[in-house]
Amino acid sequence: MKEELPADLEARLGSMKVAPYALRLGMETVSIGENEAVVRMPVDGLTNALGTAHGGAIFSLADQAFALAANSRGDPQVAINATITYMKPGRGDLVAKARKVAENKSTSVYEVQVVQGDEVVAIFQGIGYKLRRSEKK
Amino acid sequence: MKEELPADLEARLGSMKVAPYALRLGMETVSIGENEAVVRMPVDGLTNALGTAHGGAIFSLADQAFALAANSRGDPQVAINATITYMKPGRGDLVAKARKVAENKSTSVYEVQVVQGDEVVAIFQGIGYKLRRSEKK
Amino acid sequence: MKEELPADLEARLGSMKVAPYALRLGMETVSIGENEAVVRMPVDGLTNALGTAHGGAIFSLADQAFALAANSRGDPQVAINATITYMKPGRGDLVAKARKVAENKSTSVYEVQVVQGDEVVAIFQGIGYKLRRSEKK
Amino acid sequence: MKEELPADLEARLGSMKVAPYALRLGMETVSIGENEAVVRMPVDGLTNALGTAHGGAIFSLADQAFALAANSRGDPQVAINATITYMKPGRGDLVAKARKVAENKSTSVYEVQVVQGDEVVAIFQGIGYKLRRSEKK
Repeated sequence: MKEELPADLEARLGSMKVAPYALRLGMETVSIGENEAVVRMPVDGLTNALGTAHGGAIFSLADQAFALAANSRGDPQVAINATITYMKPGRGDLVAKARKVAENKSTSVYEVQVVQGDEVVAIFQGIGYKLRRSEKK
Repeated sequence: MKEELPADLEARLGSMKVAPYALRLGMETVSIGENEAVVRMPVDGLTNALGTAHGGAIFSLADQAFALAANSRGDPQVAINATITYMKPGRGDLVAKARKVAENKSTSVYEVQVVQGDEVVAIFQGIGYKLRRSEKK
Repeated sequence: MKEELPADLEARLGSMKVAPYALRLGMETVSIGENEAVVRMPVDGLTNALGTAHGGAIFSLADQAFALAANSRGDPQVAINATITYMKPGRGDLVAKARKVAENKSTSVYEVQVVQGDEVVAIFQGIGYKLRRSEKK
Repeated sequence: MKEELPADLEARLGSMKVAPYALRLGMETVSIGENEAVVRMPVDGLTNALGTAHGGAIFSLADQAFALAANSRGDPQVAINATITYMKPGRGDLVAKARKVAENKSTSVYEVQVVQGDEVVAIFQGIGYKLRRSEKK
């Protein structure tokens, strides 16, 4: 049975899943849980001059998973910083798995593993900044 | 008068400029100099749920400028790590300007400023790893 | 029963544990396992102008745990890059717990959590570079 | 002729310069300007098992220069994240030079170069978070 989320949270996540950029790159949201998210993307058409996934494409997938996970509960968050380390060339279908590592009242840290089958393609770490209601436009 | 580059270097940079991912996002190479490069990209169609440039799109533009700058001279380089800090929402036309900060015999560090007019949208730092001839396939 | 390590590995880890910098800051190695390590350090005397642990002290503790974990097995590794995110002011006794996140033939990624009791003070991510025998002096 | 700073700013910077951690590591403030600072530190006694500057010591020096530069004007700032890339082993006297790269109303980005003579030992990037008056204790 699927968990019921507040309507504003459902709307926020719904619009993130179909954001123009996510669609342009062919991203598909696999699942969103509490402070975690999984997103998939085929590398096809997103390659660099060597024929493997462009570093920007790998980052984008990880960033999307991070954004969904960080916004899965509570106040909206935006990314202030992210770091990515590349381990292997990306080919075929990539999957990004985001999970929360730490959090305080104003920021959060998420780790995202980008994998291809059981091989790690990249490790991403994102810092979220919580927009408090008074700051929202 | 345009500087003459060795044929293999021209070929490498040429194929990077028209990599499928760069074309998919609408990137246009403005210039490539010695250890520096400038790339432009309209944000149109690359937006997040808030209607501004997706963090992945901003990173991708910076990464492309970094890759061109790091491969503008000498042995080929691949990215091993990159960090981005977001300063302002991206709108309109974004321009990424990459320049070398430091280098040793196996790695290099580049800074990329992503700007929109004279406002800084993001600061990117990339680490390049030099593929020596013996490692190349 | 304690695991037996090869003599050169024991010597390497032994000299790291008592490195002048580790002793200067009062670090104590709690344990070293396979690709993991735990190090403790009292904050006393290592404070900033606000009376809490200096950011450099928190980083140093994490870096030491990372170095021990990355050198706990196989070829020696040196750090090429590290990132730290601060979550809470550090007070009292800090403990850094390092574990491997990913690895390929030339590099590795470790995550270190710096905690104080059950609160996370900082999250650290380090990239190790493997010195192959032919590179060692 | 030396620039006159408001008394509270002078007091803030003065207590940072002689923070217990800075003294413990032998740091000496060379200069503080508008959004920039230079700090020196001899490597002697701050070495790792290889006899060169410990990565934590190099980071600490850079972090101190960053903190002084980020607090040289305006509201107090604390570090939320920092990244360091190591280029060469540190020996002798290290000097860290911090300068502002970008800033918005809540955060700032500083780059610090750690040098030894005219050689770059490490590149550091720090993100400062501005404590607004209402948040200060």
